[in-house]
Amino acid sequence: MTAPFPLRQPPSSGPAAGSLTGPVSEGANLRVVLGTEQPMRLDCGFELENFTVAYSTYGKLNADKSNAILICHALTGDHFVADYHPVTGKPGWWSMLVGPGRPIDTDRYFIICSNVIGGCMGSVGPAETNPATGKPYGLDFPVITIADMVRAQKLLIDHLGIEKLFCVVGGSMGGMQVLQWAVSYPDNVFAALPIATAARHSAQNIAFHEVGRQAIMADPDWCAGDYLNQGKRPHRGLAVARMAAHITYLSEAALHRKFGRNLQNRKTVTYGFDADFQVESYLRHQGITFVDRFDANSYLYITRAMDYFDLAAEHGDVLANAFRHNGQATPVRFCLTSFSSDWLFPSPESRAVVHALNAVAANVSFVEVKTDKGHDAFLLEEPEFHQVVRGFMDGCAEHRGLTRYRLETA
Amino acid sequence: MTAPFPLRQPPSSGPAAGSLTGPVSEGANLRVVLGTEQPMRLDCGFELENFTVAYSTYGKLNADKSNAILICHALTGDHFVADYHPVTGKPGWWSMLVGPGRPIDTDRYFIICSNVIGGCMGSVGPAETNPATGKPYGLDFPVITIADMVRAQKLLIDHLGIEKLFCVVGGSMGGMQVLQWAVSYPDNVFAALPIATAARHSAQNIAFHEVGRQAIMADPDWCAGDYLNQGKRPHRGLAVARMAAHITYLSEAALHRKFGRNLQNRKTVTYGFDADFQVESYLRHQGITFVDRFDANSYLYITRAMDYFDLAAEHGDVLANAFRHNGQATPVRFCLTSFSSDWLFPSPESRAVVHALNAVAANVSFVEVKTDKGHDAFLLEEPEFHQVVRGFMDGCAEHRGLTRYRLETA
Repeated sequence: MTAPFPLRQPPSSGPAAGSLTGPVSEGANLRVVLGTEQPMRLDCGFELENFTVAYSTYGKLNADKSNAILICHALTGDHFVADYHPVTGKPGWWSMLVGPGRPIDTDRYFIICSNVIGGCMGSVGPAETNPATGKPYGLDFPVITIADMVRAQKLLIDHLGIEKLFCVVGGSMGGMQVLQWAVSYPDNVFAALPIATAARHSAQNIAFHEVGRQAIMADPDWCAGDYLNQGKRPHRGLAVARMAAHITYLSEAALHRKFGRNLQNRKTVTYGFDADFQVESYLRHQGITFVDRFDANSYLYITRAMDYFDLAAEHGDVLANAFRHNGQATPVRFCLTSFSSDWLFPSPESRAVVHALNAVAANVSFVEVKTDKGHDAFLLEEPEFHQVVRGFMDGCAEHRGLTRYRLETA
Repeated sequence: MTAPFPLRQPPSSGPAAGSLTGPVSEGANLRVVLGTEQPMRLDCGFELENFTVAYSTYGKLNADKSNAILICHALTGDHFVADYHPVTGKPGWWSMLVGPGRPIDTDRYFIICSNVIGGCMGSVGPAETNPATGKPYGLDFPVITIADMVRAQKLLIDHLGIEKLFCVVGGSMGGMQVLQWAVSYPDNVFAALPIATAARHSAQNIAFHEVGRQAIMADPDWCAGDYLNQGKRPHRGLAVARMAAHITYLSEAALHRKFGRNLQNRKTVTYGFDADFQVESYLRHQGITFVDRFDANSYLYITRAMDYFDLAAEHGDVLANAFRHNGQATPVRFCLTSFSSDWLFPSPESRAVVHALNAVAANVSFVEVKTDKGHDAFLLEEPEFHQVVRGFMDGCAEHRGLTRYRLETA
């Protein structure tokens, strides 16, 4: 396997041992080879065998393996949820929410997060070696779907010997995976927490993804996807793609509050094309830093998987039917969360899922968190949202009969 | 002067003569050289002399020159408002609104529209010849502002011998020019109709512009702005810029209504990166056709002018002060129009202007047109909007004492 991004520090030796013991691998940045006994058939028909999935775990699996939470990451996320991120050197992307005593409590639960297939942080993807050629796949990598990502996660969970996940959690594309899990494997999920997501990608969102892909493909250094074999990187195109996408993660109000029309280290405009405004400087920084940690072809594949996501499509275009299981309502307990200023996955998208779940009389709650932080709110300090996660986790733990050891001893 | 885009047909010989006669040039695609007696000083300090402005006129100027309407075009617009457009071969961009018997009636008014300076349809701009070098300006062209565009228009109006415009009209960046006209030359404007615009460019809008500029600059064929001298064109970067911008001109609802998740000439997805979805195909088409009619450097300059627009900035950051004139309210009559689904120039931006005008007790009306067509609504079939324009024109004509010959004889 190629290693497209150097690790700044050696992998963590895993979180401190808690009061529980578990029989499975624990620690950050683990690897497992899946599809060894039989290949995994993708939606496109391609059969993936002996493929690597990178994952991290936090906390301890309990004896009856009933306290496992799967976290699904978003488009440019990875499996470094908590602690520190070995490539960026920064805290894991959800360390605010995941950790000892946090809403997703690593003293209480066994947390698993895997890099999605098609990704670029260790799981099989276009930057990894194609066994047929010994070179990076590039565009020979098969196009994957959200359901394919979830299939690989299911194999990982099987490998870990976990029959039923206590909860599947994720925001944005992670939320799509959560919904897919509940639909594909309703008997293997106790609770589902899809955040700031939708049951299908909207025309506007497909349009923004297409702009990003075209920006990458317009870069001559993309080399028709073969850049790794040609010793190049389409940095400029990928940076533009990231800049365009980044605007959609924020809200106009947040941009106004953070930057307004403030100038960057100057008192008057320069009458030129430098980054006169703070918002320009900020966006350029987002683009430049992104290319150091992400692979351009992965960006193409993962955005495509999101575009293709349409949960109702395989159920006669009736979303409610996706949540029927053996003629009854799905047994999974749901909590949906949206953010009032999120215009990428606006609240009506979550409400559509809630309505579909209501239509089959499933167990569902819904919270729209008032915030001006836009789609990114699910990654930020947002106390009301964190309370929702904590409350849902606690409530489900009680229903699931999980020992409240942490709450009692804290 | 270079002619970056070939004309498909010879310029029109002008509209059919009406019942009025005028002493000035009439017809589409005229040229005038301005700044001949003294140079025009730009906001950046550069002095522009002997510069060409391309313009079109429709209808006839009346004897006392009181029926002249100046139309200001938007970012990628030009002076071909009505009739046909000689480059695209399509109808002029506002032919739905401007023509005989239309809301802006060419049988009644003398319509003027000039290509903005910095543009690429005949007025001086980065694609035109720099007299100092005999080659295209490229980035040696001075950065211009909305106020500079209006200064050049004022010289054109002076050249045409018109002291007071009956009305100044425009949408989007055209609306910025309308507001600037009213502030810079309140004695020379009777009525102002700014549409789908704002008194300052928002952080989010600056951000979208910056993405477009970075897309252009990331294209190696941009050649640091010198592409015309090097026989190249940054087509790929400009197309990406246009695609990103185009999304902002529509609304999510309109995209959903027009395209939804419909596939383009296929029944199932292809598991590839072709334009599977209609919305992708549509966007690509927008990008490809744009580069045939627009200059990349002009795109940089004009977006920059919009970014810099902040009408309150020169008035102690109090917008109302911009509309005070000789200690009193501006004498200009205003009608502002916004569109409910426009998220590029949302209604609160227009309301902020209305509040400022109210604060000085100016004559102002405001209409928010309910539509799902987004920002582009000002260019589309939108009967309520067209009624607003017609009503305001008729009302102002009465106040101005313009003979209602058309209405009486029609």
